[in-house]
Amino acid sequence: MPQFLDTTDPGFETAFGALLSAKREDSPDVDATVAEIIADVRARGDAAVIELTQRFDRLELTPETMAFSAEEIDAACAEVPHAERAALQMAADRIRAYHERQLPQDQSWTDAAGATLGWRWSAVSAAGLYVPGGLASYPSSVLMNAIPAQVAGVGKLVVCAPTPDGAVNPLVLLAARLSGVDTVYRIGGAQAVAAMAYGTDTIAAVDKITGPGNAFVAAAKRRVFGKVGIDMIAGPSEILVIADTDNDPDWVAVDLLSQAEHDESAQSLLITDDAAFGQAVAAAVEKRLETLERRAIAGASWRDFGAVITVRDLDEAAALSDRIAPEHLELCVADPEALAAKVTHAGAIFLGAWTPEAIGDYIGGPNHVLPTARSARFSSGLSVLDFMKRTTTARMSPGALKAVGPAAETLATSESLEAHALSVRARLDRLNEGPK
Amino acid sequence: MPQFLDTTDPGFETAFGALLSAKREDSPDVDATVAEIIADVRARGDAAVIELTQRFDRLELTPETMAFSAEEIDAACAEVPHAERAALQMAADRIRAYHERQLPQDQSWTDAAGATLGWRWSAVSAAGLYVPGGLASYPSSVLMNAIPAQVAGVGKLVVCAPTPDGAVNPLVLLAARLSGVDTVYRIGGAQAVAAMAYGTDTIAAVDKITGPGNAFVAAAKRRVFGKVGIDMIAGPSEILVIADTDNDPDWVAVDLLSQAEHDESAQSLLITDDAAFGQAVAAAVEKRLETLERRAIAGASWRDFGAVITVRDLDEAAALSDRIAPEHLELCVADPEALAAKVTHAGAIFLGAWTPEAIGDYIGGPNHVLPTARSARFSSGLSVLDFMKRTTTARMSPGALKAVGPAAETLATSESLEAHALSVRARLDRLNEGPK
Repeated sequence: MPQFLDTTDPGFETAFGALLSAKREDSPDVDATVAEIIADVRARGDAAVIELTQRFDRLELTPETMAFSAEEIDAACAEVPHAERAALQMAADRIRAYHERQLPQDQSWTDAAGATLGWRWSAVSAAGLYVPGGLASYPSSVLMNAIPAQVAGVGKLVVCAPTPDGAVNPLVLLAARLSGVDTVYRIGGAQAVAAMAYGTDTIAAVDKITGPGNAFVAAAKRRVFGKVGIDMIAGPSEILVIADTDNDPDWVAVDLLSQAEHDESAQSLLITDDAAFGQAVAAAVEKRLETLERRAIAGASWRDFGAVITVRDLDEAAALSDRIAPEHLELCVADPEALAAKVTHAGAIFLGAWTPEAIGDYIGGPNHVLPTARSARFSSGLSVLDFMKRTTTARMSPGALKAVGPAAETLATSESLEAHALSVRARLDRLNEGPK
Repeated sequence: MPQFLDTTDPGFETAFGALLSAKREDSPDVDATVAEIIADVRARGDAAVIELTQRFDRLELTPETMAFSAEEIDAACAEVPHAERAALQMAADRIRAYHERQLPQDQSWTDAAGATLGWRWSAVSAAGLYVPGGLASYPSSVLMNAIPAQVAGVGKLVVCAPTPDGAVNPLVLLAARLSGVDTVYRIGGAQAVAAMAYGTDTIAAVDKITGPGNAFVAAAKRRVFGKVGIDMIAGPSEILVIADTDNDPDWVAVDLLSQAEHDESAQSLLITDDAAFGQAVAAAVEKRLETLERRAIAGASWRDFGAVITVRDLDEAAALSDRIAPEHLELCVADPEALAAKVTHAGAIFLGAWTPEAIGDYIGGPNHVLPTARSARFSSGLSVLDFMKRTTTARMSPGALKAVGPAAETLATSESLEAHALSVRARLDRLNEGPK
């Protein structure tokens, strides 16, 4: 059973604090190993990647077979049944339509002093997407990482996806094709991240690396940060459902389980203003757990990290939600927009009982790569902007320099940066000379 | 003397490659020390911060004196002469006006399927700005970090600025006051970063930490990344000037020196289409170096990392510039906008000979916190967006769920995520039951 908390209990603050700070994931300290792997790939390039793939994925590669050939991708795509192909295409179309609206605007204006200022956006030249192998090899993640990059206008888009023992998920290859990926390498782990960051003879270095991964991948991304850009370091998935009593307990139960089934470290929370409804949901969860395919994982997550919190009213629910800063927030209440307006920190909000979170994982349009572990306090889900960068522009007219230059000179001098001051002064002196 | 390169020389590619990959900064491996400091601050809070400040800054603090009092700030601000105060105010006003234009728009729309989608932006609740002590204690950096946070609407804004031996820069305190900073702590180093990330009894934890710092600060920011958001890890400053022959060599010389004087590891590069002009600039640099206050630093930077590159034409200059991806790019050419349009990777572009880079450091309006070490390939200067995060929103009508739900169910099933599929199926079944 999950924890049952009630904000009217005297022990609530302590219990809620423990819930917030619970360390849900054992992060093994793989940093030293990862440092060695990165150094090895930097030093020996392809040879290191091939050896490490043999060791970790039991797969013999050559430089020629590191990437899937066009024929191999064709053949894999042809294996995908019609329903899956159509679903993936609909998802790609909807994700693309949503993300196209994120394309930012350039700006330029001339201010009262005569300075023309602005900025412009441009895409990174090359991006690499990491796609985990095994259980967590999700074609939906390929779409969610690659389509924003494609919409941003990234010139070259590659995927690294390990294929342990050679096992390939054809849907991953189809998703890559639908989202404009140029090349898919069958390599994974820290060696894939190192290869994308530093390049090898076969794998060209990219400028930005995104995508989820295990502890080795996460540690490698942290290490190459700075050499290349990275997205966030993702933690286990979370959902918070805020539901009033006018809901089907079973709907809420499956929504909670849809995160719990990801990972034993996932966290599913329910906040309700009706304790009896909370009990009904918990009962519905138990009933669903009897038959759920992934009941071992989902049950462990629900038992160890799940909670049902009863609040006095929905205002209190919003306040608690902000302390949780959930990755996914589902608002199953009569007026979800009104409640959403009271919430500040959340990765994605799902409004109303007809919007199960799973819609957002696949087909809604918004990105499913979202900030976990309370990082919605300061970060956002993946977007087109993650694959772009902004260059600021400034042009001074002589008049503008005359207006603002002396202040710059004063500040540079106060910071003991004489050359800064001189670079302004040299021009001001010319202006003061007047026309020759 | 700096290096002189010419793209028509057979050895150019090798020399240019070496220039790009030159390791300009010795980054001492302070990671183990920093890990200890962070652990100590997490374990012992204020006591650890006080001890470390005594050890590194030779300053005795108590929890009560960790922050400057309002009276201390008043007194320091009163010390600032009128010219500096007016210059700082003008800078603050111009930086604020520029950054206010960066405030992003929320969006919401309903698509053909009946799904209401969108996103909204909100500010982080609390941000901490690191301001280095000693030589690099720049009031302009306070403005450049704090004003974007203030414009974003950050609720609480604190500064950590070490005061070695108690030395305080009054301009730093005035800059903090002008940019809406709530509290200034006189602590620095990894201990300051740890205190802002994890909180102590005296220092409340923040959600985002920005600002430059030494190797300890950089390593600490890298370590707390994830617990809080951070800005980039800044490296030594760089400028690339592209100048045609119709320029005063002395102006270009002081512009090059304005970066060189920052740091012996700074890099100043000139690209010109006229070798004789390049020689004239180099001669002007030598002349300025005879009297420049910071000639030891600027001279070392120019000698060790400076370069004058002669190109065939400006198109070639633009192509080289993109390989350099400079932090600051100054275009002293007849049509700087046309040349800027050919450049993709740069932190900030300064258009025309009347726009010395130093204007951008202080008073132009754009931010001076910019990507270094070729990271303009994938990252942007500091902006209002760095202090905000985006929450995506989605609301399905029953009709929208009917339209897109089956595809979500198909994809969830293909990913073996049964609860995801069931959460959609439970609702579709209700719809198929029809009205009761």
